[in-house]
Amino acid sequence: MAGLFETGDPATDEVRAAYAYLGAVTERPTAQLWDLVDMVGPVEARDRILRKQVPEGLADQTEARRAVVDGAGLLEDAQRSGARLLVPGDPGWPDWLLAPLDRPRGRRRDGTGGVPTALRPLGLWWRGPADPATALGRSVAVVGTRAPTAYGRAVTADLSAGVSAEEFTVVSGGAFGIDAAAHRAVLGAGGVTIAVLAGGVDRLYPRGNDSMLRQIAETGAVISEQPPGTGVTRYRFLDRNRIIAALTSATIVVEAAARSGALSTAAWATALERPVGAIPGPVTSVASVGTHLLIRDRGAVLIGRTADVVELAGDMGETAAPPCGGTSTWDGLDDVTRRVLEALPTSGGVAPAEVAASAGIPSSTTRAVLGRLMSTGAAVRGPQGWRRSGGGGVQMSLSVG
Amino acid sequence: MAGLFETGDPATDEVRAAYAYLGAVTERPTAQLWDLVDMVGPVEARDRILRKQVPEGLADQTEARRAVVDGAGLLEDAQRSGARLLVPGDPGWPDWLLAPLDRPRGRRRDGTGGVPTALRPLGLWWRGPADPATALGRSVAVVGTRAPTAYGRAVTADLSAGVSAEEFTVVSGGAFGIDAAAHRAVLGAGGVTIAVLAGGVDRLYPRGNDSMLRQIAETGAVISEQPPGTGVTRYRFLDRNRIIAALTSATIVVEAAARSGALSTAAWATALERPVGAIPGPVTSVASVGTHLLIRDRGAVLIGRTADVVELAGDMGETAAPPCGGTSTWDGLDDVTRRVLEALPTSGGVAPAEVAASAGIPSSTTRAVLGRLMSTGAAVRGPQGWRRSGGGGVQMSLSVG
Repeated sequence: MAGLFETGDPATDEVRAAYAYLGAVTERPTAQLWDLVDMVGPVEARDRILRKQVPEGLADQTEARRAVVDGAGLLEDAQRSGARLLVPGDPGWPDWLLAPLDRPRGRRRDGTGGVPTALRPLGLWWRGPADPATALGRSVAVVGTRAPTAYGRAVTADLSAGVSAEEFTVVSGGAFGIDAAAHRAVLGAGGVTIAVLAGGVDRLYPRGNDSMLRQIAETGAVISEQPPGTGVTRYRFLDRNRIIAALTSATIVVEAAARSGALSTAAWATALERPVGAIPGPVTSVASVGTHLLIRDRGAVLIGRTADVVELAGDMGETAAPPCGGTSTWDGLDDVTRRVLEALPTSGGVAPAEVAASAGIPSSTTRAVLGRLMSTGAAVRGPQGWRRSGGGGVQMSLSVG
Repeated sequence: MAGLFETGDPATDEVRAAYAYLGAVTERPTAQLWDLVDMVGPVEARDRILRKQVPEGLADQTEARRAVVDGAGLLEDAQRSGARLLVPGDPGWPDWLLAPLDRPRGRRRDGTGGVPTALRPLGLWWRGPADPATALGRSVAVVGTRAPTAYGRAVTADLSAGVSAEEFTVVSGGAFGIDAAAHRAVLGAGGVTIAVLAGGVDRLYPRGNDSMLRQIAETGAVISEQPPGTGVTRYRFLDRNRIIAALTSATIVVEAAARSGALSTAAWATALERPVGAIPGPVTSVASVGTHLLIRDRGAVLIGRTADVVELAGDMGETAAPPCGGTSTWDGLDDVTRRVLEALPTSGGVAPAEVAASAGIPSSTTRAVLGRLMSTGAAVRGPQGWRRSGGGGVQMSLSVG
């Protein structure tokens, strides 16, 4: 959410150029930068940075690039490669999905303040025909090692084509290995896939995936937080991983070694209270060490087939119509489902971690049950979090096996 | 525990013959039978059954075999095949391990009364040199499908040899497939393995494993709840599975199809509040469907290597001496370990499920922590359940990673 300056109307060219400037003037969003934007709006924020009329910390952060960045020029660069800049306030801006990146509404729970404001992106460079709201409304991340086994490639392809057939957008990082297998399977199935790059959308990276990324840009979208012309660095890959986790309703790791970057995406998903799924494999395979770690020690749900992903991700898009029938009886529900339902408010919304805490149920189970409740219309996920659905009964089929 | 009649001294020949009779007069122990034995002792119980001086229900249960079973004769049959009958009250009787098969002490939590008394075996036919107390004091069940993959066999062999090297007895069912791979690996490593048969210990089944079972009987033990001469039936396999689960401190399932008998062993372990571990495999393998089910939906811990089994099973044998050092500070303990310790009473004992509930921690995690606490002497598992150890501090190394 962009606070006072979010209108729901498309941003003006001036606002867009201001965000282009603001997104490029620091390496990544900072708390101080967002504080200024929230306070005075993007145009005035840019102007104050240019005039050095900002607090010392922000002055330091922007010193190196303050006079170099040209927001309007970046927009022109983007246009040349068929890209645009999606900014807060745009109708397609995924603020609903990015909400957990935002500062906690109202109050901070403790000193740490949850996920800091600094993580909220200042814009997303978007190269491709996919409509952001539609494509991200029902999306899942499929990520993994750049050095997969034949098993990992095959499972990635099956799973990605499978969730694509369930009308999920498959989001990945465009890298070699699992990422490419996921993208390619969706391309082959005629579905929508989005590659989130660590560098600019005009610099398709890695070069070896150039034709695949080009095809993604023609049918889905190649996107980035970094402005056109930006090369990749190690830190940009890590920053990119948070965008993958934040834009999707679940992150699935197919194969990952013990220190795979895919584990950082999973860690971001967990920090952002998105469910993580992981595919098991032979315990003799180093490519499965990371996924087993996620399942064993980090609360990831074991994923064995497409239906498991659908259950985990739930329906993040249009909420299904609640089932008919006036009786709102909870009879027949298992204890776990009942406790999750009881923990949900009827208005406003709460985070899955709060539901888990008040229901006394592990987070991973809570998320799976929430997904199921949402898919039957018994629960709704809105911008403020999860709440119980207003109308309709709860189906017996919710029972946890 | 055998109630009033447990002395700790070896049972007399008469008591032993009475138990042999009682264990054979019904297909499996019944609540009514155990009620009588608990009330009047095994010898008088046998005599009353023979005289038909028993309540109607028990009279019906014993009608078919009442006049046929010959307890002393069964003991002679056993002796011919080198077997003996271990009964409640014998020094080696694993009542400590079988305790959860007993009726809940004091009060029943609800109408179901937990695990019914009927499940407690009336004796164990024991063919082999292994000392029951020693062999079962530190034991783990390794079970699985009769139709494993090459991967399943290899992992079973590695894991079984591994836990054997950690001085655990490997208990399994003597069947083809995973069971045989587990037994053979331990035999090859010179460790102790126990095969629990569904039929009599003089009828080694399956025939194809005859030489392996013979070798187990010569080095470890082939045991059974069923008297000599008994053949196998489907129900005896299922009854046998509860013995495997009850005699061990953890049950590990290596490979299992969706309806594998190994899942019944795992279900028994869970019902008896023993931890269950499962080995993942390729999601494309039908032989891993059951283990993935256990991990995903039934609280089994993902097992990737020997150390995971040791952690899960903990040290069920002699309690290690508490670490030295007068300071009993809990500083440095992670939150989970601290909560488990706080949930433990200093006298008496509680079930892991109670610890989990009052600590607000998932059962599988609680069991793993309890195992670790026991191995360092910070917690003790006695006949009444788990309690905090009296003396000594808690080491920093308890931290949950």
